Amino acid sequence: MAKNLTTRSEDYSKWYNELVIKADLAENSGVKGCMVIKPYGFAIWERIQAELDRKFKETGHQNAYFPIFIPKSYFSKEASHVDGFAKECAVVTHYRLKNDEDGKGVVVDPDAKLEEELIVRPTSETIIWDTYRKWIQSYRDLPLLINQWANVVRWEMRTRLFLRTAEFLWQEGHTAHATEKEAIAEAELMMNVYADFVENYMAIPVIKGLKTESERFAGALETYCIEALMQDGKALQAGTSHFLGENFAKAFDVKFQNKEGKQEYVWATSWGVSTRLMGALVMTHSDDNGLVLPPNLAPDQVVIVPIYRNDEQLDAASEVANALTKELRANGLRVKFDNRDTHKPGWKFNEYELKGVPVRIAIGPKDVENGTVEIARRDTLAKELVKTEEATNKIVALMTEIQENLYTKASQYRTDHTTSVESYDEFKEVLESKGGFILAHWDGTMETEDRIKKETKATIRCIPIGGDDTPGNCMVTGEPSARKVLFAKAY
Amino acid sequence: MAKNLTTRSEDYSKWYNELVIKADLAENSGVKGCMVIKPYGFAIWERIQAELDRKFKETGHQNAYFPIFIPKSYFSKEASHVDGFAKECAVVTHYRLKNDEDGKGVVVDPDAKLEEELIVRPTSETIIWDTYRKWIQSYRDLPLLINQWANVVRWEMRTRLFLRTAEFLWQEGHTAHATEKEAIAEAELMMNVYADFVENYMAIPVIKGLKTESERFAGALETYCIEALMQDGKALQAGTSHFLGENFAKAFDVKFQNKEGKQEYVWATSWGVSTRLMGALVMTHSDDNGLVLPPNLAPDQVVIVPIYRNDEQLDAASEVANALTKELRANGLRVKFDNRDTHKPGWKFNEYELKGVPVRIAIGPKDVENGTVEIARRDTLAKELVKTEEATNKIVALMTEIQENLYTKASQYRTDHTTSVESYDEFKEVLESKGGFILAHWDGTMETEDRIKKETKATIRCIPIGGDDTPGNCMVTGEPSARKVLFAKAY
Repeated sequence: MAKNLTTRSEDYSKWYNELVIKADLAENSGVKGCMVIKPYGFAIWERIQAELDRKFKETGHQNAYFPIFIPKSYFSKEASHVDGFAKECAVVTHYRLKNDEDGKGVVVDPDAKLEEELIVRPTSETIIWDTYRKWIQSYRDLPLLINQWANVVRWEMRTRLFLRTAEFLWQEGHTAHATEKEAIAEAELMMNVYADFVENYMAIPVIKGLKTESERFAGALETYCIEALMQDGKALQAGTSHFLGENFAKAFDVKFQNKEGKQEYVWATSWGVSTRLMGALVMTHSDDNGLVLPPNLAPDQVVIVPIYRNDEQLDAASEVANALTKELRANGLRVKFDNRDTHKPGWKFNEYELKGVPVRIAIGPKDVENGTVEIARRDTLAKELVKTEEATNKIVALMTEIQENLYTKASQYRTDHTTSVESYDEFKEVLESKGGFILAHWDGTMETEDRIKKETKATIRCIPIGGDDTPGNCMVTGEPSARKVLFAKAY
Repeated sequence: MAKNLTTRSEDYSKWYNELVIKADLAENSGVKGCMVIKPYGFAIWERIQAELDRKFKETGHQNAYFPIFIPKSYFSKEASHVDGFAKECAVVTHYRLKNDEDGKGVVVDPDAKLEEELIVRPTSETIIWDTYRKWIQSYRDLPLLINQWANVVRWEMRTRLFLRTAEFLWQEGHTAHATEKEAIAEAELMMNVYADFVENYMAIPVIKGLKTESERFAGALETYCIEALMQDGKALQAGTSHFLGENFAKAFDVKFQNKEGKQEYVWATSWGVSTRLMGALVMTHSDDNGLVLPPNLAPDQVVIVPIYRNDEQLDAASEVANALTKELRANGLRVKFDNRDTHKPGWKFNEYELKGVPVRIAIGPKDVENGTVEIARRDTLAKELVKTEEATNKIVALMTEIQENLYTKASQYRTDHTTSVESYDEFKEVLESKGGFILAHWDGTMETEDRIKKETKATIRCIPIGGDDTPGNCMVTGEPSARKVLFAKAY
């Protein structure tokens, strides 16, 4: 109830919105649907970026940068892509403003109308494949493994910070291959890279799987995804990796000469994760006291707060704090010693709890006397007095312990909220009473999928890869089902 | 004359355009005025970004992210800013496309017209100060030291890769301070951070100075800049740092309560460098054989090329190469062993010369026999046979040597092409015959500055900080001049 934060049980959605703002992660801007990512939120995003970028490079990818604008006609070249992306978008029609003749500011200059409108990129397949045509001639030019960190815009009417905003930040990988097999292997590889990152770095367990046809990326033959479960029992798609077949190569006429000297179309993939991951982070680990950050992502992993009534006490606490800070930093930890005299210890405790700093150290006059420090864990809220000389080892170990505990806790929640059902009635009952992931048989048709969605608002999150693949009968139609698929209401 | 590259003396401008494309730095895209930054060029930009970002954080700045769109009305709030920036820009007027009724692709949906047009940011002072109003209440909230890495768009009719493009990448710092003095100190600090970076990291000597009123940033009270000299005798502004006074605080009503409890307007700075630095890099160091990269910025600092006629010879060369690669990497160097059998050694030599790799190692059968390797420096094109066991130390030392040599060479060029003149005739003569920087007396008026610009195309690059400040008389009008100022034709 601290910090006047709405609790999750009161109103989960409100809790999320308040927390994102109060913890200084992001806020709404003066531009409808566009967010400002505040320094604290951006510092977390930078850590996400850095680790992903490392993984991309480790797997042979290079970064590049393509234009933010895409000529309108490019979208019409790939039939299914245009329906998926070219509709709700920001359209640039003019390239000049002029002074208003009434002297009231500036107006669009009607003489500066573009011959062809430009779309602010909602995703970059079209502009990139238009470029790849120039880059790819021979099998020697393949594979081409490129990633771009960029901002993209999709005009959204109902927005929520991080989860759905008109502009968001992301990375988009776009690769070109000589064979179908290689392209599929790449799409699978990147799904696994994402899963590894989200699980081991963000401490969020995910289910890997394939999207159904109706949930696929516009222009893809197959969409691989990772699905996470939030604390309110709703699913969140945390990353997607698409096998695009020869669709974009055909749309943009990208061919290569194979080893036998014959012209062939190039095979493609694309894959992306976005600032949406920030939403997943908040909704997986945080609690009614504020953010809970896994040590890997926390801008400050440890914060030290001195408790004192006079300068002498502050000096004594500072001496211990400075030595400890030095030791912890020597162990690679990110440590902040907050000795500001503008705020009281209680205020600071609240603040760092709200901001999810994994470990908080308090050093008061008694601690100095007794040679102890107080260590508080953000994840369990447990406090412990520790001998000062043992503090460094203890805190270093806590980093791993907290990281693992968050993952374990989230996994346990997911296990408790994953239900395998046999009938449609049971499905509806579980969905209403408990939510979460539901495994159920489905006949594989878009009609049944649509019907379930309309009747229950649940969608097929994915056809899981691995796990139980016992065949059965569709819970709705009774038709044969190859295996149970994963349903949930989703963000 | 290698690689069919136009030489600098033949046509400097053509040489530059060809080199940027042939060295795989960037190319024009299907969108007029917008460039594609290719992986090799982007890898250099990433090195620029990483080092600058480190310096920004070291000086207390944090990164954040603000919307790409700015409502049109925001520009009208700061009077001089609107004239400078809101004219040639990309204007978003609609938010939806729809299927053409003729079935020919998509058209703009006239029903989806925005109430207020959005401008794709040409610079972010307005949207950021609109946000700062919410972030700043008290002197405790100051200073606010924020940087953003972003893409920006300024509609340019005549574009050149890196030097002037409609969209470019940059960073923009936006800081808020309690006092004028602090804000000026910040603007000066960031000019010095830029100068330090460009000189010591990019090996490009710069002159620090102040812009004249007519060359100032739109909305600034003072613009600090660093000016570099290119090999064709033209100047290039490599970075600017602006003291904005209270202009944006007044325009966006950003006040704070000072320690005495009184409301005051906030003082501002902004500062930026862009992908233009890539142009400066190319034009400062490169030669008729291609790029020349300072070791600090080179994606590959060392490339090893084996020379062989059969597998046995390749194996022998590879053994030496692998051991050397390992040693060099242990010394923190970025090394590539190019053992591709799809290209001949001569082709590789040419390629790495074109791409500016600082050191090239060749290992042939004779080298293996004699226990030597051939080391070639890109900057001097000198080759040397070195005992294999001495190679690592030699190459490590070469990194510093080449970095310093490039700076020395560029400094020497600048010294040779900086002329102090006493009369307008002499000024015009030097400008035509030799170009470069010209120091001359100026009466401090915009009229004289304009006249010189119209008559000679030279502009005042800056009023240098430090150096000779002997007063004299304006070369054009004979009026008193406080000190000589720096003229040049400029990019």
